[in-house]
Amino acid sequence: MTHQDELKQLVGKAAVKYIQDHTVVGLGTGSTVKFMVDALGQRVKEEGLSIVGVPTSERTRKQANNLGIPTKGVDEVDHIDLTIDGADQIDQNFQGIKGGGGAHLWEKIVAINSDKNMWIVDESKMTNQLGSFPLPLEVIPYGSVQLFKRLQEKGYNPEFRISDGKKVKTDSNNDIIDLHLHQIKDPQALALELDQMTGVVEHGLFLDIVNTVIVGRESGPEILTANR
Amino acid sequence: MTHQDELKQLVGKAAVKYIQDHTVVGLGTGSTVKFMVDALGQRVKEEGLSIVGVPTSERTRKQANNLGIPTKGVDEVDHIDLTIDGADQIDQNFQGIKGGGGAHLWEKIVAINSDKNMWIVDESKMTNQLGSFPLPLEVIPYGSVQLFKRLQEKGYNPEFRISDGKKVKTDSNNDIIDLHLHQIKDPQALALELDQMTGVVEHGLFLDIVNTVIVGRESGPEILTANR
Repeated sequence: MTHQDELKQLVGKAAVKYIQDHTVVGLGTGSTVKFMVDALGQRVKEEGLSIVGVPTSERTRKQANNLGIPTKGVDEVDHIDLTIDGADQIDQNFQGIKGGGGAHLWEKIVAINSDKNMWIVDESKMTNQLGSFPLPLEVIPYGSVQLFKRLQEKGYNPEFRISDGKKVKTDSNNDIIDLHLHQIKDPQALALELDQMTGVVEHGLFLDIVNTVIVGRESGPEILTANR
Repeated sequence: MTHQDELKQLVGKAAVKYIQDHTVVGLGTGSTVKFMVDALGQRVKEEGLSIVGVPTSERTRKQANNLGIPTKGVDEVDHIDLTIDGADQIDQNFQGIKGGGGAHLWEKIVAINSDKNMWIVDESKMTNQLGSFPLPLEVIPYGSVQLFKRLQEKGYNPEFRISDGKKVKTDSNNDIIDLHLHQIKDPQALALELDQMTGVVEHGLFLDIVNTVIVGRESGPEILTANR
């Protein structure tokens, strides 16, 4: 295990301490989350913790089930008590960018249906200002070339996400356009503008959503609490 | 031909007079639009009008092609000069509801990419206040049950659109939820609220979009011009 992975494992272990017995837990996706799910499986096995997981991806669902963590779909539960997920960038006001993995639509749907949200990240994800990480948009394929032109005219440096020479498709069979903005001065204003653009299904700005962030520092996991 | 159809045919003929040679024309969908496309086919045949149609549905594309009107996709044209479409309800401020046919996402994408928009309707569609016609939402299936509950809590009387015992799927493979609001006091505020709801791909409010409305009245087609 690399030193980086050791730090992520410590974060994962710190995160699962927040999970209480008999609750419904949203399970995100990503390298740090993978360690968290491992640590959760250990608690289920050793303490007989009785929880239900709501995974945001097929990959996480398989991992959870293999560890003996039962899972349900987001529409099969009454509510979600706590969701633990990763993030691509987090600023000082606890606003974030997600969607580097192309799953921000489903992740946001799980997040907004959760009473509490926790993000677990390595310290490279913490920033003063969002935007050096490209902002992903999930977009409807029909009319996406016209939408792309409109984003270009706004100076948002759009780029279709391509893999193996083809447009990447999301789980909802849409396309992804990444905006290379470099800096986002007013995340709220940008979110509102993108929300109102026809053809944009969802953007990767996760605003006023997270309650707790656990950062993998050299000195050990640092726990940050948002004032909301 | 019924008397109602005669009125629609007159509206269709009045509408195509606005189409100029060598332009790109968005072609909507619906019973009045069908008469308009017929009349357009006649102009193409008789006057040798050279236009390109951008249809909002497979049905309209077939009709156009059968009449000798060439068509292209919305992403294959530089721009659209004029789109002629129907509407389910239009108020005194030229704000509208569309989506009774379940195609409002694609119709809105064509509309916002058009320099000018014209709606052609029978007079039953004209109203003082929007809302007696149910407002359609195209929604992402993932998490749609949670979204439905949220709409219920807001008192929006949501109903999944069902046909033959199954949820109706849009051309983008999403679900439709109709909101039975009875009256919409502030269309702009409602549109903004729905724009910001995760899982709502697009609502059927078409605000500040139409330039000209042609209404099929007993006294003949009435032409109304929006002040924009």
